[in-house]
Amino acid sequence: MSIEAVVPFKPVNPKSRLSSVLSAAERELFAEAMLTDVILSLKGAGCDPFILSTVPLHCAYAKVNVSAEELNPALNGLIGSSSGPLLIIMADLPLVTPGVVRRMISTTCDMALGPGRGGGTNAIFIKDRSRFHVDYYGASFLKHREIADKAGLSCEIVDSFRLHTDVDEREDLVELMIHGHGKAVDFLRSCGFSLLIEKGRVGVSRSTGQVSTPGG
Amino acid sequence: MSIEAVVPFKPVNPKSRLSSVLSAAERELFAEAMLTDVILSLKGAGCDPFILSTVPLHCAYAKVNVSAEELNPALNGLIGSSSGPLLIIMADLPLVTPGVVRRMISTTCDMALGPGRGGGTNAIFIKDRSRFHVDYYGASFLKHREIADKAGLSCEIVDSFRLHTDVDEREDLVELMIHGHGKAVDFLRSCGFSLLIEKGRVGVSRSTGQVSTPGG
Repeated sequence: MSIEAVVPFKPVNPKSRLSSVLSAAERELFAEAMLTDVILSLKGAGCDPFILSTVPLHCAYAKVNVSAEELNPALNGLIGSSSGPLLIIMADLPLVTPGVVRRMISTTCDMALGPGRGGGTNAIFIKDRSRFHVDYYGASFLKHREIADKAGLSCEIVDSFRLHTDVDEREDLVELMIHGHGKAVDFLRSCGFSLLIEKGRVGVSRSTGQVSTPGG
Repeated sequence: MSIEAVVPFKPVNPKSRLSSVLSAAERELFAEAMLTDVILSLKGAGCDPFILSTVPLHCAYAKVNVSAEELNPALNGLIGSSSGPLLIIMADLPLVTPGVVRRMISTTCDMALGPGRGGGTNAIFIKDRSRFHVDYYGASFLKHREIADKAGLSCEIVDSFRLHTDVDEREDLVELMIHGHGKAVDFLRSCGFSLLIEKGRVGVSRSTGQVSTPGG
């Protein structure tokens, strides 16, 4: 039986910290491209993914559940509503590959955590979801490790930069341009982004005159 | 036979981008603490490490070779002077563990690359050093992958956030405070650093009045 995987997604005004380089419409398309990359990696690893969206959404690759609740109650409601293993993974991880997903779900521990940059939690795999609850925001990685400890759950910390790299800011686009291989990096290229190396530092630049369209 | 591992190190005015939070003397101690963490992880993985320093240096944990040459000619001189496997690993990777080093040196490919943030290369393992040369600075990860390709060398990209996270800037200290477990994080704590969570973002703060001394 394939493992259920939930990808929380907030389609309205996503990735606002990229406003200096992408328009609101482009940020929506970019967020959807990253989501698709994550969904396809989950499928590639044999998971059964669905999207937990704050508003109705069409996705060609996965079913969509809509919940207007905040992230923590929405996920904890989901955890409490069923049993068995569950993978929770964020939508802004376009570097994740099926191999990374397999590392998460093949843990020999009771659960696995994938840390994100700045103390966040980018993925959680729980073999018995009834023994865990989530507490996102702030230094959620430390909170999740403590919740596991208190519940007596052994926990593997999955050491992967592909899982660690959530794309929020302009400098994160460098990682995507260098290590990406899916729809999100294709979208950036279609917008005219390329790597820019100045004084030994690597950044991204966007060629002027490029306008991205949904077919872009 | 244990694998030779070289750690390039520049002790003079290190980690200048941390000047806003650490004095010049503290940055020297912090850089040495990170170097020691790397050396101990190399030893923990069974490697035979030495430091390639730009100036004379005493280290209690490894021998020191001094070379005034720039990084690329110094390392390529070393590569050309001997045969057999070689691991090159940067000194500012305090999150690296013996397990990460073992992932590098146990590759089934001809070589392994550990990418760093922003297109850099944090570690290179070459089974036959005569077939490779280094080209650091800029997007060196892309250059190293191309050098491997042109030499017909199969190359594993080691997916590890511990290897990916070089500590250069204030925000990188968050990673160290959360995931560190060695002399570098001990040094930060002795300086009065702690995690600071404000508006959901995680940073570091330094308590006033704390002065770090070598005995810290």
